[in-house]
Amino acid sequence: MINKLVDKIQKTKAPIVVGLDPMLSYVPEHVQKKAFAEFGETLEGAAEAIWQFNKEIVDKTYDLIPAVKPQVAMYEQFGIEGMIAYKKTVDYCKSKGLVVIGDVKRGDIGSTSAAYAVGHLGKVKVGNNTYAGFDEDFATVNPYLGSDGIKPFVEVCKEEKKGLFILVKTSNPSSGEFQDQLIDGKPLYEMVGEKVAEWGADHMGDSYSYIGAVVGATYPEQGKLLRKVMPKSFILVPGYGAQGGQGKDLVHFFNEDGLGAIVNSSRGIIAAYKQEAYAKFGAENFGDASRAAVEAMIEDIQGALEAAK
Amino acid sequence: MINKLVDKIQKTKAPIVVGLDPMLSYVPEHVQKKAFAEFGETLEGAAEAIWQFNKEIVDKTYDLIPAVKPQVAMYEQFGIEGMIAYKKTVDYCKSKGLVVIGDVKRGDIGSTSAAYAVGHLGKVKVGNNTYAGFDEDFATVNPYLGSDGIKPFVEVCKEEKKGLFILVKTSNPSSGEFQDQLIDGKPLYEMVGEKVAEWGADHMGDSYSYIGAVVGATYPEQGKLLRKVMPKSFILVPGYGAQGGQGKDLVHFFNEDGLGAIVNSSRGIIAAYKQEAYAKFGAENFGDASRAAVEAMIEDIQGALEAAK
Repeated sequence: MINKLVDKIQKTKAPIVVGLDPMLSYVPEHVQKKAFAEFGETLEGAAEAIWQFNKEIVDKTYDLIPAVKPQVAMYEQFGIEGMIAYKKTVDYCKSKGLVVIGDVKRGDIGSTSAAYAVGHLGKVKVGNNTYAGFDEDFATVNPYLGSDGIKPFVEVCKEEKKGLFILVKTSNPSSGEFQDQLIDGKPLYEMVGEKVAEWGADHMGDSYSYIGAVVGATYPEQGKLLRKVMPKSFILVPGYGAQGGQGKDLVHFFNEDGLGAIVNSSRGIIAAYKQEAYAKFGAENFGDASRAAVEAMIEDIQGALEAAK
Repeated sequence: MINKLVDKIQKTKAPIVVGLDPMLSYVPEHVQKKAFAEFGETLEGAAEAIWQFNKEIVDKTYDLIPAVKPQVAMYEQFGIEGMIAYKKTVDYCKSKGLVVIGDVKRGDIGSTSAAYAVGHLGKVKVGNNTYAGFDEDFATVNPYLGSDGIKPFVEVCKEEKKGLFILVKTSNPSSGEFQDQLIDGKPLYEMVGEKVAEWGADHMGDSYSYIGAVVGATYPEQGKLLRKVMPKSFILVPGYGAQGGQGKDLVHFFNEDGLGAIVNSSRGIIAAYKQEAYAKFGAENFGDASRAAVEAMIEDIQGALEAAK
């Protein structure tokens, strides 16, 4: 799957991922109205609204991008109905040839991590049959529990040729509270980064490892350091756009081959129609606004990568 | 909800929680057979089997215990059908008067943590209506992202009078890999414990805070220290029984009032019928075996607390 991701990035020339994190407030009124007319102002109605919203954005952008990253929390808030919309979104994106990164940030002790890994990336045995529960291509994972929380995920990834992005340095303002603490003069995130490189060495694709890392766009200096600590790990970079990161801050997240990072934007793409720059499209054409925002993002990042050569 | 938990612990004299973590391999054959006969060897069949298994255990133990802790990973592995069984389990346990601790170990950046908090502990707005998604009483949360990943959970807990157990020192063998690292001579778990006390001071019940901590039974020395660092926080203690912890190791997780900790056992209770000590019940009467295991666990812990007086 890491090979497919690299291949798709090279073909689209777009090291970006669209974050499908649909707050109900992002969904244009006409889409909400239609869903509520059919299912009422219910969890089912909300789930239908976010699914239709996602579908339109995917239809208008899938040819430009290699991957999407649905944030499961945004679906989980609507209970079971939301999880059904999550699964529909995963399946639909895969049918469009997109790589799907499930932003689930799971992580637990051994046997429990194994169950999460099976549910999101693997297959579960029921009697004589096997089934895939959610079946994303990659999942994000939290490292706080250490190696025996991570290894069951790696094992399932090996079987299924799937991958992980492990939280190393997150994009939020208080990420430093624990992650930046110095241990023998070295910040915790660097120590986690070294572990990611170690776990990743055990499951390599052609040029990059199946085991990647999450490093926020909002911390470019740390990105520069972590790029060197984990040379073979892809870095998933959240925090572009709405959270403040820009193309020029991101060049050091990439390797000299122009690869090694994939930059996520969520609100900046999916709610583009609400921004002044894309207001001309109108809420009716929110998908076209998202397409234009994707094009601008690709240009920003490609331009920054070219300028840095 | 922390007041209800304290009250129920005092009434049952049982500072314990039953972990409803149903691996399919724990479910007796006759329960599996019946579920598969109705729904086939499908995800729906597996979900029915674990739900019927849970229901029997709850029916046979609810009068002895204050709380249950379903581990969502064990349901998530069966996809949407598994999540439906999770929700059924949560609702059924609440109808029996039990406090439900959703062992979900969620955690993300601000707005995303808010969505998880809404989905598991709060209510989501859809048009003019509000709905509770999963509606547990407590949730476990991962602290790696720092304060702004935790505070949205605390805000929802304040509104709903619900609570959290934040991972501090986990029970698994490699928990020390990051959690034990020394920062200015103090381990990371102690620093996280200090933060739990700080977050908890902001949301107090009558005698204990709504914001508790997870500290593994397998680390009694650390439990002793953390008890002092977070005097007003309840400690959820996993790792009893199958993972190796025993009553005598646990006395220092409690305060002098005999409160302040709640000890979890999962496999040791729900799969008791597979142990030699309870084999006499037979797989047919697995619920009675679980009841006997609960009684033995209460005796072990109460005995240790008495002996330490």
